[in-house]
Amino acid sequence: MEAIAELSYALDTFYFLVCGALVMWMAAGFAMLEAGLVRSKNTAEILTKNISLFAIACVMYMLMGYGIMYPTEAVNSWWPGFGEMLGKDDNTAATVIAGGDGAPYYSKLSDFFFQVVFVATAMSIVSGAVAERMKLWSFLAFCVVMTGFIYPIQGYWKWGGGFLDGLGFNDFAGSGVVHLCGATAALAGVLLLGARKGKYGKNGEIIPIPGANMPLATLGTFILWLGWFGFNGGSELKLSDVGEANAVALVFVNTNMAAAGGVIAALITARLMFGKADLTMALNGALAGLVAITAEPLAGSPLASTAVGAVGGIIVVFSIIGLDKLRIDDPVGAISVHGTVGIWGLIAVAITNPEASFSAQLIGMFTIFAWVFITSFIAWFVIKMIMGIRVTEEEEYGGVDLSECGLEAYPEFTGTHGSGK
Amino acid sequence: MEAIAELSYALDTFYFLVCGALVMWMAAGFAMLEAGLVRSKNTAEILTKNISLFAIACVMYMLMGYGIMYPTEAVNSWWPGFGEMLGKDDNTAATVIAGGDGAPYYSKLSDFFFQVVFVATAMSIVSGAVAERMKLWSFLAFCVVMTGFIYPIQGYWKWGGGFLDGLGFNDFAGSGVVHLCGATAALAGVLLLGARKGKYGKNGEIIPIPGANMPLATLGTFILWLGWFGFNGGSELKLSDVGEANAVALVFVNTNMAAAGGVIAALITARLMFGKADLTMALNGALAGLVAITAEPLAGSPLASTAVGAVGGIIVVFSIIGLDKLRIDDPVGAISVHGTVGIWGLIAVAITNPEASFSAQLIGMFTIFAWVFITSFIAWFVIKMIMGIRVTEEEEYGGVDLSECGLEAYPEFTGTHGSGK
Amino acid sequence: MEAIAELSYALDTFYFLVCGALVMWMAAGFAMLEAGLVRSKNTAEILTKNISLFAIACVMYMLMGYGIMYPTEAVNSWWPGFGEMLGKDDNTAATVIAGGDGAPYYSKLSDFFFQVVFVATAMSIVSGAVAERMKLWSFLAFCVVMTGFIYPIQGYWKWGGGFLDGLGFNDFAGSGVVHLCGATAALAGVLLLGARKGKYGKNGEIIPIPGANMPLATLGTFILWLGWFGFNGGSELKLSDVGEANAVALVFVNTNMAAAGGVIAALITARLMFGKADLTMALNGALAGLVAITAEPLAGSPLASTAVGAVGGIIVVFSIIGLDKLRIDDPVGAISVHGTVGIWGLIAVAITNPEASFSAQLIGMFTIFAWVFITSFIAWFVIKMIMGIRVTEEEEYGGVDLSECGLEAYPEFTGTHGSGK
Repeated sequence: MEAIAELSYALDTFYFLVCGALVMWMAAGFAMLEAGLVRSKNTAEILTKNISLFAIACVMYMLMGYGIMYPTEAVNSWWPGFGEMLGKDDNTAATVIAGGDGAPYYSKLSDFFFQVVFVATAMSIVSGAVAERMKLWSFLAFCVVMTGFIYPIQGYWKWGGGFLDGLGFNDFAGSGVVHLCGATAALAGVLLLGARKGKYGKNGEIIPIPGANMPLATLGTFILWLGWFGFNGGSELKLSDVGEANAVALVFVNTNMAAAGGVIAALITARLMFGKADLTMALNGALAGLVAITAEPLAGSPLASTAVGAVGGIIVVFSIIGLDKLRIDDPVGAISVHGTVGIWGLIAVAITNPEASFSAQLIGMFTIFAWVFITSFIAWFVIKMIMGIRVTEEEEYGGVDLSECGLEAYPEFTGTHGSGK
Repeated sequence: MEAIAELSYALDTFYFLVCGALVMWMAAGFAMLEAGLVRSKNTAEILTKNISLFAIACVMYMLMGYGIMYPTEAVNSWWPGFGEMLGKDDNTAATVIAGGDGAPYYSKLSDFFFQVVFVATAMSIVSGAVAERMKLWSFLAFCVVMTGFIYPIQGYWKWGGGFLDGLGFNDFAGSGVVHLCGATAALAGVLLLGARKGKYGKNGEIIPIPGANMPLATLGTFILWLGWFGFNGGSELKLSDVGEANAVALVFVNTNMAAAGGVIAALITARLMFGKADLTMALNGALAGLVAITAEPLAGSPLASTAVGAVGGIIVVFSIIGLDKLRIDDPVGAISVHGTVGIWGLIAVAITNPEASFSAQLIGMFTIFAWVFITSFIAWFVIKMIMGIRVTEEEEYGGVDLSECGLEAYPEFTGTHGSGK
Repeated sequence: MEAIAELSYALDTFYFLVCGALVMWMAAGFAMLEAGLVRSKNTAEILTKNISLFAIACVMYMLMGYGIMYPTEAVNSWWPGFGEMLGKDDNTAATVIAGGDGAPYYSKLSDFFFQVVFVATAMSIVSGAVAERMKLWSFLAFCVVMTGFIYPIQGYWKWGGGFLDGLGFNDFAGSGVVHLCGATAALAGVLLLGARKGKYGKNGEIIPIPGANMPLATLGTFILWLGWFGFNGGSELKLSDVGEANAVALVFVNTNMAAAGGVIAALITARLMFGKADLTMALNGALAGLVAITAEPLAGSPLASTAVGAVGGIIVVFSIIGLDKLRIDDPVGAISVHGTVGIWGLIAVAITNPEASFSAQLIGMFTIFAWVFITSFIAWFVIKMIMGIRVTEEEEYGGVDLSECGLEAYPEFTGTHGSGK
């Protein structure tokens, strides 16, 4: 039986690593999605933000975040202690083979790898919402606080064994802990930052600012869809027996069906609202379906999951329209996709999972929102005081690519004729 | 031994899920390939088609297709019954451990996940061939019929245990069942739809219409190449012993070598024909190599597989030229890549696999072609009668992006100077 | 125990195949990176080179390279014999179950699949450095020699059990064998080829030639980052027990942290040097971090690996500036990323791994450099004599897309206004 325990350990570790690699790939998805949905003059800067935030998230989570979120000994259920520094794995064949309830069944570092890419996902959500007008270095300063402190604390409350977990709050892979968290931080930033110049007219009209590159945005959506199999599929945390393997397979299927439901629902909703098959809404529909199912991809059937995703796809269209009416300017729709639909995902758990309680879901939702909004707002505010968060009007009109990065994303395609200039 | 049976089940399930995720990724490949090969004014629409068809394929196959293709009890060998609705997995540790010939060795839902992405692949083939002139909603209507009914029936004949399987027809991963099927449905559509305006001159000349974005087309090809490891590799359907693991490895190697052979052969053929190293032919050569090996990636050696792919790479160049002479307008070459070369793949089985019979291959090929062509033609025809299948001439000149989707794919790159307008 | 041996064999084979597929995906990464960093008029040609070199690498390594690098019987430790032709796997369940020291524990063909994609990686490095001015067919001719002979010989010296391995030279996944090798071949080519027209002014000034498509370059970097998990992670060569699984997980984490360190260091270095957050330097920083850790991703802690990557990120900025001062024109920075930083990676082993010797690292480095530089120089020189290696000045100004491929990469985006024309 010793060899079996070792082999099982290897399989579960590999499963974590493969799923983690898929989630890491989501960083590329966010980068492409956001680069496609902004104007060409702001494209290089959003790309720089995306690769930098991933790097910072990895370093901060290694240095601080992981130790906060999964402390070896917690102070209490709402304030964690601080875990040990990340070192090499100390799981040995002997402890694995010995077995028992607390025995390790996968490499600790494979868990870190899986967790660290989640943090980056939460942070990626922010970059889209503040696009085209926020200073690059101010954004990266916020990234340090968010990935090293704000995210890990609320992550501890649910996944580290804190009080939200004790209350029975359900959030399988993070409609709340990851998506609502990211969207809330984005909302706080956007409120302090204000809308892009020219987005809202003097007479209250909303002026569409089309993204420069739809194939990129579509590619980004497909990348995210693929990566989500790792995101949700890996969150089962174990693969190596019949029950677990069935569960992981169900999570893959439900995740896929929810995205499909989201696409179809958003496409039809957009057709009814605007008279056209709006591609950006179809893309947002896919992502909305994925966000919606993330809180509970295991309790429902594939058909029910399709419905959960479809409702997400409808909600996202109205949320995008509604935020624009409130003059909350979110160039890529990130607050709607991850925030509004993240809330729907948390509520949907109470419908598809008979063991979930509606009140626990609400408490979890409000806790995450309140914690992230308040701390993020303070962080953004302090950064605004110290270094400013918004580029000058001149820089904004000229494009942040030139002012922040000193280069153009497409120097040959938009010489003097670019509509964005 | 119980733990071994469970672990083996988990590994085979994981293998299905990983391969399925790779095949899902092919949806992004088709989207990028097609978006790169059409003009910029029709790019957003082809992207919308691609993400929507994937979503519809998933929903229709869940609701109907899977139950038709893999019925729990068939009416007879050419007309399936209808399987049960997709629910949760009812495989239990007990039945797995009990073992025996009929015992499950992987999660049913992982099989569904793998199968459903195949359906979407077949449908993706169609969107390219009808690009730049077909109405979006008519296309999606056809998608419903194709993925819910036409594809599953012929899939049942081979993979569901129907009469083609009984006859000894060999089609490992679907040169016929998937690729020829998709190409045939595309051909029927193109014949009813007609060529793009301006493709064929009054004096019989063929006017090249270059695609707008070669890097996208190349990216799409690489994505498809990667995804094909899942497509063919997963079709071995089992991994968990020495013989099966060797088989899966051979399939990976042969798939890769066939694509490599296809690139080189198509590149040289194009050089000899046109005097230049035509990139689009190199890309089509890679895909042709992949389609060619799909019917039998297991019987031949890596060297033989390179040759099978190379022949595919030569055939595809002549097929593209030939279809243009016949004024069958296929903007991305899908009918040649998946249809003509799909036929070559089916025939090549009789060369590389001594157990295959030439006549069974021909019967399979003609059966698939006849079934799909007739049913597709009827479906396209009915859709044409009811809602029309072609956009107006004005819409075609203005680009279907504006008329169907209400937005532009690259609003800043092709202001007033786009050659496609 | 027999079933366990078989299952273990299947898991290790699958691990090779998954990692190999990730490395194959790096071919797309190089293609996108290079296509993004050249001008639009040379984009289709670099794409053609990238897909063709991958195909040629696969065929040549199957025909010759693998047999040279892993001979069944070597002539001696610095000159290999020639292994048998690649056929089907002859590992059987019986030999696997029999066990013992020499027993196979994974499919030979899965090893070939993993190795063949490494060769293509080495060759991909070359295409970027010689971009925008080298003849396509001359490049492909060099590719034949490089992948069939030059790479395999030095690969044999280390990984095939030759004299460098005997000396205690450490190179886990190929900072030297793959990256320095590719960069050295590129350097030899660039020296014979000369700089692009207009790159260096008459008064010694360096004229920046910006790449046409930054999102593509960023996508390429993310693809390479993802693929590197297979590149380094698979190079542990075994997964199936606790110690090996822990090792693979550590390699994944360290690889990721090194890339993160590289991004941050390069971004800050560029900010200090140029005053801006230069995106291309951030991308090169990520790649530099990855190259740096490749020689030893297992001995150091995640924190140490971050530092190794960060030093790589600093070095790459200065190397790019330095090569430009030497008028060695490398459009994508490949020689700096893979060569200069590859050397740093080899040296860093002696710091992080107490078992490594500084002198053995230097001997390995000089051996690889000398062998590859001399043989590559001869090969480039012979090709130059026979068919020429540089396009005409007129072709260079007009763009190699038209002269070599007969098509444009973006026909609608850069009509008459492209700054690159």
